[in-house]
Amino acid sequence: MGKPTLTVGLIGYQFMGKAHSNAYRQVGRYFDLPVDVRMKTICGRTETGVRKAAETFGWEGFETDWRRVVDDPEIDIIDVSTPGDSHCDIVCAAAEAGKSVWCEKPIGNTIAEAAKMRDAVAKSGKPSVVFHNYRFAPAVSLAKKWIDEGRLGRIFHFRAAYLQDWIADPQFPRVWRLEKARTGSGALGDIGSHIIDLGRHLVGEIQSVVGQLETFVTERPLPEGGGSGPVDVDDAAAFIARFASGALGTFEATRFAVGRKNANRFEINGEKGSLVFDLERMNELEYYSELDPPGTRGFRTVLATDSSHPFAGRYWPVGHIIGYEHTFINLVAEALVARDRGERFRPDIEDGYLNQRVLDAVERSAASKAWVNL
Amino acid sequence: MGKPTLTVGLIGYQFMGKAHSNAYRQVGRYFDLPVDVRMKTICGRTETGVRKAAETFGWEGFETDWRRVVDDPEIDIIDVSTPGDSHCDIVCAAAEAGKSVWCEKPIGNTIAEAAKMRDAVAKSGKPSVVFHNYRFAPAVSLAKKWIDEGRLGRIFHFRAAYLQDWIADPQFPRVWRLEKARTGSGALGDIGSHIIDLGRHLVGEIQSVVGQLETFVTERPLPEGGGSGPVDVDDAAAFIARFASGALGTFEATRFAVGRKNANRFEINGEKGSLVFDLERMNELEYYSELDPPGTRGFRTVLATDSSHPFAGRYWPVGHIIGYEHTFINLVAEALVARDRGERFRPDIEDGYLNQRVLDAVERSAASKAWVNL
Amino acid sequence: MGKPTLTVGLIGYQFMGKAHSNAYRQVGRYFDLPVDVRMKTICGRTETGVRKAAETFGWEGFETDWRRVVDDPEIDIIDVSTPGDSHCDIVCAAAEAGKSVWCEKPIGNTIAEAAKMRDAVAKSGKPSVVFHNYRFAPAVSLAKKWIDEGRLGRIFHFRAAYLQDWIADPQFPRVWRLEKARTGSGALGDIGSHIIDLGRHLVGEIQSVVGQLETFVTERPLPEGGGSGPVDVDDAAAFIARFASGALGTFEATRFAVGRKNANRFEINGEKGSLVFDLERMNELEYYSELDPPGTRGFRTVLATDSSHPFAGRYWPVGHIIGYEHTFINLVAEALVARDRGERFRPDIEDGYLNQRVLDAVERSAASKAWVNL
Amino acid sequence: MGKPTLTVGLIGYQFMGKAHSNAYRQVGRYFDLPVDVRMKTICGRTETGVRKAAETFGWEGFETDWRRVVDDPEIDIIDVSTPGDSHCDIVCAAAEAGKSVWCEKPIGNTIAEAAKMRDAVAKSGKPSVVFHNYRFAPAVSLAKKWIDEGRLGRIFHFRAAYLQDWIADPQFPRVWRLEKARTGSGALGDIGSHIIDLGRHLVGEIQSVVGQLETFVTERPLPEGGGSGPVDVDDAAAFIARFASGALGTFEATRFAVGRKNANRFEINGEKGSLVFDLERMNELEYYSELDPPGTRGFRTVLATDSSHPFAGRYWPVGHIIGYEHTFINLVAEALVARDRGERFRPDIEDGYLNQRVLDAVERSAASKAWVNL
Repeated sequence: MGKPTLTVGLIGYQFMGKAHSNAYRQVGRYFDLPVDVRMKTICGRTETGVRKAAETFGWEGFETDWRRVVDDPEIDIIDVSTPGDSHCDIVCAAAEAGKSVWCEKPIGNTIAEAAKMRDAVAKSGKPSVVFHNYRFAPAVSLAKKWIDEGRLGRIFHFRAAYLQDWIADPQFPRVWRLEKARTGSGALGDIGSHIIDLGRHLVGEIQSVVGQLETFVTERPLPEGGGSGPVDVDDAAAFIARFASGALGTFEATRFAVGRKNANRFEINGEKGSLVFDLERMNELEYYSELDPPGTRGFRTVLATDSSHPFAGRYWPVGHIIGYEHTFINLVAEALVARDRGERFRPDIEDGYLNQRVLDAVERSAASKAWVNL
Repeated sequence: MGKPTLTVGLIGYQFMGKAHSNAYRQVGRYFDLPVDVRMKTICGRTETGVRKAAETFGWEGFETDWRRVVDDPEIDIIDVSTPGDSHCDIVCAAAEAGKSVWCEKPIGNTIAEAAKMRDAVAKSGKPSVVFHNYRFAPAVSLAKKWIDEGRLGRIFHFRAAYLQDWIADPQFPRVWRLEKARTGSGALGDIGSHIIDLGRHLVGEIQSVVGQLETFVTERPLPEGGGSGPVDVDDAAAFIARFASGALGTFEATRFAVGRKNANRFEINGEKGSLVFDLERMNELEYYSELDPPGTRGFRTVLATDSSHPFAGRYWPVGHIIGYEHTFINLVAEALVARDRGERFRPDIEDGYLNQRVLDAVERSAASKAWVNL
Repeated sequence: MGKPTLTVGLIGYQFMGKAHSNAYRQVGRYFDLPVDVRMKTICGRTETGVRKAAETFGWEGFETDWRRVVDDPEIDIIDVSTPGDSHCDIVCAAAEAGKSVWCEKPIGNTIAEAAKMRDAVAKSGKPSVVFHNYRFAPAVSLAKKWIDEGRLGRIFHFRAAYLQDWIADPQFPRVWRLEKARTGSGALGDIGSHIIDLGRHLVGEIQSVVGQLETFVTERPLPEGGGSGPVDVDDAAAFIARFASGALGTFEATRFAVGRKNANRFEINGEKGSLVFDLERMNELEYYSELDPPGTRGFRTVLATDSSHPFAGRYWPVGHIIGYEHTFINLVAEALVARDRGERFRPDIEDGYLNQRVLDAVERSAASKAWVNL
Repeated sequence: MGKPTLTVGLIGYQFMGKAHSNAYRQVGRYFDLPVDVRMKTICGRTETGVRKAAETFGWEGFETDWRRVVDDPEIDIIDVSTPGDSHCDIVCAAAEAGKSVWCEKPIGNTIAEAAKMRDAVAKSGKPSVVFHNYRFAPAVSLAKKWIDEGRLGRIFHFRAAYLQDWIADPQFPRVWRLEKARTGSGALGDIGSHIIDLGRHLVGEIQSVVGQLETFVTERPLPEGGGSGPVDVDDAAAFIARFASGALGTFEATRFAVGRKNANRFEINGEKGSLVFDLERMNELEYYSELDPPGTRGFRTVLATDSSHPFAGRYWPVGHIIGYEHTFINLVAEALVARDRGERFRPDIEDGYLNQRVLDAVERSAASKAWVNL
């Protein structure tokens, strides 16, 4: 329709590859975008796997070497959805090649890598994206809007926990997500980075932290069989933070909260009201308001599916809920619009770097047994 | 890949048209199907609208006269997603043309129409589908599985309510869904038919009913302006039912439950346990079991997103919820598999007819002020 | 302190006897009353039992023949907490003796008894009380207050269910509550009468009903051993009602809702908002208000423990909940204050009679299979 | 009836005085105790107030000087329910006088005071009691029982928050609970001590902590008028703890969680299951069990009102909830039974001291910005 086309190359074809592919494929069905997205190439190391992924997820073709994707002159956006240990090389190469970098979180395995990526992207001058998709759940976007409007007033508390349980069984194997060399950290980086992003997004920058990392099961069966191997990342992380605004934050990320599957939760207490979110009920935002008449106050469950709510009007009528995958569709839509308008999209690689600084500070605090300033 | 192709023509391009289109487009991305779906034609009366819908929803082409779609020899499946007053003509014509009929609910505006459609489809010998999509919410499929396994034992109670509030404001206009000539009935057929279907699906056939229909606001502004017009359908319907099994059912459907947006709820009480479902939290199934040790019993919230749960493994890892649209994807997947295997898919037009018999009995009971046997 | 004293004689010393005794004993500790309550006599047929009850519950003395209590000139109030088959004789005798009658619900086993009691009490000219204690849960009193203030506007729906499960096991014995001769009816009178009272209290008089009674288990082991006996009361009752106001009511009472222990629930939908109550969380009232700004609406959980809430200030600070027994304390306090002011206390025997008319109409409707007007 | 009598003198007649009085008055009505409780003397500094309290709460007499109560040879138990600054003097004097000491929490304003009290009580050889009443909510007792039975297996996480909001308004006056000299600390000691007690009770001793104290509003209007005064206690406290068992604990206590009235909450994650409690719904315990069949697992809400649940059988039938005040009745009953059997009652003054050690360590950690070992 005369719209410009943006061409995407996606590196990685597992869980995140599937979610990102769905977003690129669906975004134009629900959003009236200024550009068309072309899904050109998906890339993975195993040819049979990536070939099947290309077909199933709707990509024109596939590659097994990410350098060929980065070198493809037709491609505008390199989407990096691989394990953390390959992010830095791919991101830096893509940035040098003048591509727009869209990267999974946390951007690096170390603060040094993150800084390198941030610098490479800054030098490229191209807009970037980090996939902190939970900002784009309608209920979270609504929380952000209300906070920006002053509905909560001064914020006293941010209380976040991201609770999972998939490795609570000591017989669960030592997969790559439990190897520091592959993944940088455990629960802290994988899911803790999400609640740090939500804290930064909703309450502002973090000034100092004190925290603790725990590894409850230090040795596990190897996934390939043949004995066991060490776990050298954290099973759980907890930290206290002071925000620049003076708010007090508590953060906890764990893979040992038996019964909690994907409980990414926060509660924010401000002088005029409070907000509560839980990803397992991601269409709902709980809201307590001091503006309600005395005697009638209580936490109310706002089903954020009204056409007045962020993103909700794009999909279904009120009361018809959306799911996990839509957070990616919303993120992609917002990023494409911002790009078209020449506006900075948040969260970008700079946000990814600032997030990594918090992760790094928590790790240093856990080692030094004392507060760390950022 | 050598798979056979099934070609679909969709009549209707509003809310249901959008939902069905999404299902046809997405189903092959998540399910490993025995057939490929070809989205050939979408049909609607307004050319500008349907042209845009074809492009947005991903159809190859469009038509403005449904007869041309029915007559298209390439098309295998006619999907009827128009308002109720046109179902009978389209369904009968499609059946006569040897097409497989996939129809929105309730299938007709009257029992006479429903019988005619059932007969036409039966005569065609082709498998049919009725879009009672809520059977295919994973939590509802799980409920069905558990009931079939005997987890609840003898069922005493089915307690269902489908609560909405979109016309509670008396200034809301007299849209087509409030005209008997267009839509047959009001809350009863529109949403009551869904809970009747769930009752039939989960507890079995209904033997007798007694009910009441209410129209709280009998005159409303015309949507096109220029005064007001009468509302001649029910705003709310309530009825008591006896199931063939001896279970006692209570059903309520209303558009006047202020604050309830899409609260399609049921509770089933059996001798060994109970189940509770609410569409607004459609990923959850509440379960109480007498098999739990005494003293530890309680209603538990099962998040039906585990790979062991119906359909859930097709999408995302445990704890990552799906939404309203996925019920249609699941339905389409099941219907395609059943068709391929030569098995009867439920709910089909016969189910649609049996559902309509209940609607009809409730209307007759409301008129006669007495119980009606089916 | 110079306050007048009201002297009470209590007939019955089981569950209700315990609850009423607690209320008389505690009411002066929390409410600043115009009278002192003297707990003079408790009465029961078994001397060892009633002697122990007198001591445990704090009565001055006991009797084994209720006529002696009724004849005691010192006694002002006769509290009738026995099974239903003895209410009529005791109430009528007490009324004739010029006592104030305070009676458990439902007041009679038949409408004829209820009428006789109502006439006897009317003739006595003394204020009376019926123990529909749930009106006096703070959250219910709050609902009443808000409805009276017009917070809900015109009421469309009253949706009530009282769900229990204590006889769902077919091996549960045939206790007196399952004998029509002792108790009049089953779930209908025992717990259905409570939701009828709440409906009348909150929405107004009922004009017509249609209903169904079910007995799922028709024979049970005798409690004293030696074989089984018939169950001749309803295990479950469901009925639809039209209120004089035009509101549509649905009522269900059952002892077969496995997992529900004491789920006395209602939802009221009005044009400006809705209210939800559940006795198992009796300190909470859910409230949805159209008066909230669009986009911020949702059901809020009001914890009715604020000093602004009815009764709550008498007990503990906000957030410190009260329990079942406090509904009786509140009722007694209100009744004593009304008596002192010469105001009519509601619910009184007249209310008990009007309640029984609804019970009777439901029974007649179940027999005739048609609507019954009151 | 030939039972021995224990005579109580209560120092303090405000909120805690009211709650303790109710417990002494009611305990014999619900529990079949080995002793009778005699409520002899209540003591407070203001004669009109304490005289009224004696009458309202049911004490034989009153005093305005606590020393006279301690010196009363008839009195067995001295109950100390005054503000924290007077605990040490009264407790030590009572212990020296050979009384059994029953004391509100936290026992002292400083660790030095707590140690002195502990020593005095130890020297007396008399059994003591600290009013950590929440251990005796039936749902909490049930949690303890299940943990002791091994239902959770190894415990990984204890996640507790006690959230209130009564001083979030900066215009709320500078009451005595905001003066360090009167109260020792703010949210930390007042409500943080309760969750510390629950952590110690349910998970075991705490080995090390790191924490933060915040005072959001540092100056407030004086309650007596005439300007404002400084707030020198914490408005909020957060700390991370390592338990001796290796479990990771997070604790937060705040009076600035707008909308939270009395949200004393914990979640415990063990290898075989998890438990969740919230005081605002204190009759409920949420339980997730790995022992449930796969696919049927979920958090279940156990209504701890069954006769099999701790304490519940003493009061009302299943589903009839109890309230805040009953936690004190249960505590008193347990303490009296333990005393009669010559068994140590927990929590006693030794527990109060160990609790205070944690409070003290948190304060030292907040000052030193580093972990503190206990």
